[in-house]
Amino acid sequence: MTTDIEAHLAARVDRYVAELRDFCAIPSISAQPAHKADVERAARFAADRLTTAGLADVAIHPTEGHPVVTAGWHGDDHAPTVLVYGHYDVQPPEPLDAWQSPPFEPTVRDDRLYARGASDDKGPLLIPILVAEAFLAVRGSLPVNLKFLIEGEEETGSPHLEAAMGGLADRLAADLVLSADGAMWRADLPSVIVASRGLLALDLIVEGAAKDLHSGRHGGSAPNPLRALAALVASLHGADGRVAVAGFYDGIRPPDPAILRTIEAVGFDPGLYFTEIGARPPAPLPAGAELLRRQWLEPTLELNGLTGGYGGDGTKTVIPAWASAKITCRLVAGQDPDRVFEAICAHLEQRCPGGFGLAITRHGRGSAAAALPPDLPALGVVEDVLEGLHGVRPLRVAMGATIPIGGGFRRTLGIETVFFSFSTADEDYHAPNEFFRLESFRTGLVAWARVLEAIGARLGQATR
Amino acid sequence: MTTDIEAHLAARVDRYVAELRDFCAIPSISAQPAHKADVERAARFAADRLTTAGLADVAIHPTEGHPVVTAGWHGDDHAPTVLVYGHYDVQPPEPLDAWQSPPFEPTVRDDRLYARGASDDKGPLLIPILVAEAFLAVRGSLPVNLKFLIEGEEETGSPHLEAAMGGLADRLAADLVLSADGAMWRADLPSVIVASRGLLALDLIVEGAAKDLHSGRHGGSAPNPLRALAALVASLHGADGRVAVAGFYDGIRPPDPAILRTIEAVGFDPGLYFTEIGARPPAPLPAGAELLRRQWLEPTLELNGLTGGYGGDGTKTVIPAWASAKITCRLVAGQDPDRVFEAICAHLEQRCPGGFGLAITRHGRGSAAAALPPDLPALGVVEDVLEGLHGVRPLRVAMGATIPIGGGFRRTLGIETVFFSFSTADEDYHAPNEFFRLESFRTGLVAWARVLEAIGARLGQATR
Repeated sequence: MTTDIEAHLAARVDRYVAELRDFCAIPSISAQPAHKADVERAARFAADRLTTAGLADVAIHPTEGHPVVTAGWHGDDHAPTVLVYGHYDVQPPEPLDAWQSPPFEPTVRDDRLYARGASDDKGPLLIPILVAEAFLAVRGSLPVNLKFLIEGEEETGSPHLEAAMGGLADRLAADLVLSADGAMWRADLPSVIVASRGLLALDLIVEGAAKDLHSGRHGGSAPNPLRALAALVASLHGADGRVAVAGFYDGIRPPDPAILRTIEAVGFDPGLYFTEIGARPPAPLPAGAELLRRQWLEPTLELNGLTGGYGGDGTKTVIPAWASAKITCRLVAGQDPDRVFEAICAHLEQRCPGGFGLAITRHGRGSAAAALPPDLPALGVVEDVLEGLHGVRPLRVAMGATIPIGGGFRRTLGIETVFFSFSTADEDYHAPNEFFRLESFRTGLVAWARVLEAIGARLGQATR
Repeated sequence: MTTDIEAHLAARVDRYVAELRDFCAIPSISAQPAHKADVERAARFAADRLTTAGLADVAIHPTEGHPVVTAGWHGDDHAPTVLVYGHYDVQPPEPLDAWQSPPFEPTVRDDRLYARGASDDKGPLLIPILVAEAFLAVRGSLPVNLKFLIEGEEETGSPHLEAAMGGLADRLAADLVLSADGAMWRADLPSVIVASRGLLALDLIVEGAAKDLHSGRHGGSAPNPLRALAALVASLHGADGRVAVAGFYDGIRPPDPAILRTIEAVGFDPGLYFTEIGARPPAPLPAGAELLRRQWLEPTLELNGLTGGYGGDGTKTVIPAWASAKITCRLVAGQDPDRVFEAICAHLEQRCPGGFGLAITRHGRGSAAAALPPDLPALGVVEDVLEGLHGVRPLRVAMGATIPIGGGFRRTLGIETVFFSFSTADEDYHAPNEFFRLESFRTGLVAWARVLEAIGARLGQATR
């Protein structure tokens, strides 16, 4: 029972909110070089707060980008070691004129803290630091060995994190990652993310003549790369809407049955969905469960951009020299990014008509889909804690989006990552007027206290 | 015989070149508002030169854009009346650093005059003015009644010309237009343009959700307008490369057999063509005659632009709210722009999948293909004059591009337009280092003297 810790935390919530406002007042925008000093200031804020909380070995490690902050607390060789992950950088706040209060002047309205970074990820990250401080203040010890890894480049794709982790393997060695980043799926339903889709990104460029040509003089005899591109990318899907690339679906494994049960249970409303995104509902309207299954459990091959020729006002009689398409695939369990890339290349190369050049570029190596082992002990602990808080068993949900850090921790440290963030997906964290529900802040403090204690009590060496 | 006129002209060629240099030194760039005063100066230059030549009724008429210059000379109620068309405005000269000598400092190199506008259209336009002056100086009269219409907005699509012509119908009434604008197809082959393709321009926009969506969260359930657009525009052509729109080819009339004979006669080299445009030759390589037939006599449906989603560096996981395509069709004799537009709209609307919005915008009314009646008497006169000059019968050629003024004269004045320009298509008139062959200037002076005399002698009332 963490009654003592919870009482300590509850008595100090106003002070914690003031600290969160200070943290959020730092414009630590990792994408904008002009804010480099602010990003470093946020790293120091995190490091100082870890030190104040009583954690040991607090260090700021330079990387080729923004620094990584680590800390540790070691009490018992036989206790499990939990590594907490979070990030101190934030998204750019633009467009500024869409904010009701300035993004870096944190403001409380209706029990919500409005500020860039409040929900992603400064609020959720501050929670486990405060909980650790409470344990150390009240009891003089933590129920687990606790480490922190706090990065400053999450919003730019964590380009230097995995290299940094390689150099810090000793400081980071743990049995489990608890991520303070990520988001609850819906505010009204407790849930745990157990799977996310992988990602593969590529461009293709189709080349015709060496320069733009006049469509009157050359139309009919010269190759038009826009036409070839349109035919090529249209060939990537069949009339049934499925991806028509041979081998694309090869090797797909069935999903965790718990996710399928969630899809049937949540009553996803298809009409409401199309209303919310402002799109015309297709006829016939797909069932809600089918839509949610496609978001979570089906792979996609999505066009993200088409570019070529003239795009301004009016008309221009041009046959352009080239045309390009940007594509990302979301992958599900069992699909290998390398093999999917090869299958797409083969499909495009076979179909590129004579008289055109085709160049395909892959962006990064991408990532495979992630899925927690359904019987992972830490998953059960988290579910029990959430059930205790909410009175209902949390749903196991999948994410359509990609969470690359899980794969990074598995590759670098050989451990699984359980998401235990108290932000919610509707908190506009990549848009103006980002906010963090203070109710979630208070709930998160209790939940983290309970989950650390439960892990210490129940897991021991079991997760190693 | 115009021996007297030709001798008068030949004795003054150096003076004429100096005058052409003065005309070309005026940067009369109609597209650039900063050059409005220069454009007016070029209009006055043309008007003054017509007055000096001895033409009557010289007038500068304001329009909503740049002014129109007219002049006339009336000698004999029974003689045919010829209206000479040309323009005093020029293309923008950019990029300036690609010019070997500055665009508005006319420079003679290798018997070519290098300057913006030298070939298009100041050199070819000056010729009939000088020829008229020679007739009036040597004989005191012209062999035809001669009128001039010189505009200043040809390079911006002549947006106000047809309205101006409507208001000047009395001053412009004639039996025939001889255009000093247009261009010989090749420097080594005398030719007469007898047909050109028409034009229809449209955009389509496909709409999905009301705003850009995250392709991870929404991929698989949200409509992707890029995919719908690619499928729609890809459906516009069949696997054989022909336009797949029902009704597109309806009503097409067979071309002038003389054009088909030209296509067989000229020995168009397909390998050289693909080398010149810098494109990979398709395999199998089409026959040269087939390529030229497609340029001149086949209609096209050409994509000129595709726009939607992200086009910058790297990758962006977006499902954009909309995607658009720009299309122009080149039309051949018998195709009606209105009916072709309706056929394309019907094709697209039938195929637009549910869940997407489709908006189609037409740019202007476009223009039907133009073709001279094969037995037009003035055409035979022009061919005889060119045969006398070159020793071979000129070829009747078509143009893949669109020449809207012919249709404008037919609609407004009810008369045909014969192109009698001495610029050549290779003179870089829409590119840096535009030049005009002075050999063409000298030949053009003789040719215009002969053609005016031959029209006066042979046509009389016949063309009315």
